[in-house]
Amino acid sequence: MDISARIEAAMRQAIAEGQAGAAPGKLASAFEYALTPGGARIRPTICLNVARACGDDRPALADAAAISIELIHCASLVHDDMPCFDDADIRRGKPALHKAYGQPLALLTGDSLIVAGFEVIARAAHHDCARAVELIRILGQRTGMPYGICAGQGWESEDQIDLSAYHRAKTGALFIAATSMGAVAAGQPAEPWEELGDRIGEAFQVADDLKDALLDAEAMGKPAGQDEAHGRPSAVTELGVEGAVQRFRDILSGAIASIPSCPGEADLAAMVRHMAERLIPEPARLPAE
Amino acid sequence: MDISARIEAAMRQAIAEGQAGAAPGKLASAFEYALTPGGARIRPTICLNVARACGDDRPALADAAAISIELIHCASLVHDDMPCFDDADIRRGKPALHKAYGQPLALLTGDSLIVAGFEVIARAAHHDCARAVELIRILGQRTGMPYGICAGQGWESEDQIDLSAYHRAKTGALFIAATSMGAVAAGQPAEPWEELGDRIGEAFQVADDLKDALLDAEAMGKPAGQDEAHGRPSAVTELGVEGAVQRFRDILSGAIASIPSCPGEADLAAMVRHMAERLIPEPARLPAE
Repeated sequence: MDISARIEAAMRQAIAEGQAGAAPGKLASAFEYALTPGGARIRPTICLNVARACGDDRPALADAAAISIELIHCASLVHDDMPCFDDADIRRGKPALHKAYGQPLALLTGDSLIVAGFEVIARAAHHDCARAVELIRILGQRTGMPYGICAGQGWESEDQIDLSAYHRAKTGALFIAATSMGAVAAGQPAEPWEELGDRIGEAFQVADDLKDALLDAEAMGKPAGQDEAHGRPSAVTELGVEGAVQRFRDILSGAIASIPSCPGEADLAAMVRHMAERLIPEPARLPAE
Repeated sequence: MDISARIEAAMRQAIAEGQAGAAPGKLASAFEYALTPGGARIRPTICLNVARACGDDRPALADAAAISIELIHCASLVHDDMPCFDDADIRRGKPALHKAYGQPLALLTGDSLIVAGFEVIARAAHHDCARAVELIRILGQRTGMPYGICAGQGWESEDQIDLSAYHRAKTGALFIAATSMGAVAAGQPAEPWEELGDRIGEAFQVADDLKDALLDAEAMGKPAGQDEAHGRPSAVTELGVEGAVQRFRDILSGAIASIPSCPGEADLAAMVRHMAERLIPEPARLPAE
């Protein structure tokens, strides 16, 4: 099965588990609404590609790891869109969840998705208990306090922001989860894979800055020009479009250079390069050097 | 160490983990605010008493299980107090977290506490991997969708409420988690211990109805008379004070009768009876039959 099909199959399974039995109907519906149709599924795709590069000897565990990260990512989108944060009306081209279901169900959907992330791994733990516990440990570390995406979002409430801690936690954390959990699912240690995730996260942040500056709301599927509107730090404001694209390429080279030696190293490098090219919005896409 | 001291020591450890390193200061502070000073710590107390009744051969794992439930419980209080749910100003005699820190940090604190619940168990997993995974599975099941406290809260958004599913999920789920996780931490199967948790949850619900009807806001540490004000189903509305106290005693007898045969069965029955007596508010406390 190709990676995209594995992700969607595992996602259907996670949705079915969340909706099983006598679940309250609206929350069950909102749970699915938050997860489908998916975005690019970038984090689980990276996770499964790393698992494959490492031999992928427990594919069901790798699938669970990949989906767990996507569940957490979708939870963060639901909560971040709520009025007390971004107050966003649109997400992935449809009404944001709190617009479609109201705030109480949006809050509960996010909570339920966080929990589902951990459950998915626990359900696959019989394939390898020690690896499953390590996956759960990493998922927690990259989601909560003090280093996960919750911490990243928390930095936005501080008077003095530690910018590096902010970006590493807010955007980087789930990419670090993606690479290190892909490795752990396949029986490799997490640590050598953290730099790849960290750098992909940095590249993704620059690509996001470029999209926010160059695309309109329709192409984005969410409001555009938000960085300038909210005075947020952005690579485009700092370096201009061309400078930001150059930085993107530099980070990408560093990311690829950081890939640990493994059976599928060359394929993984090609995947990272291919995925990265698609992150850059059309108006800034220059021929590679 | 007595059970209360074990709970507070494990809680201090969980708080320290959440605040480690370069955590954003306000979220780190809110994380602690939500957990201290604690309420009665009823759920972790039950969990550790069950673990002890089952031999408690992995006390660190039992402590982790107990604290994980309390972290989830505190998360639910933070989120439930927010304006889109109960809009409560006061909790445990001090300003509700969103009143003290604002809504964005309240949302993130709840999210971080949910994650911390799973992390606490993962960190103790080296004591017994298989038990840890089972604890994580149960914690997820009793927290998220379709049977956990998220589902319970979700029922409040339905036009037609399944009252039994509602109460079992909203109040019962974490008591079922408490008894079954206490058993699992000590190497026993979860299922025979579920009925005890379920019945304690029912008793707790009746006690809560009595408190809501009989106590004032100061004695409660939160607003009183909410059931009547919101037209919620309540044992007091249905049966009167005396009838509700009688139902409480009936449920309690059933709870004690359901305790599986185990080395510490008699002590556990005494603990449940003792704890239950303190749940009944003073004005309704009649001599036991």
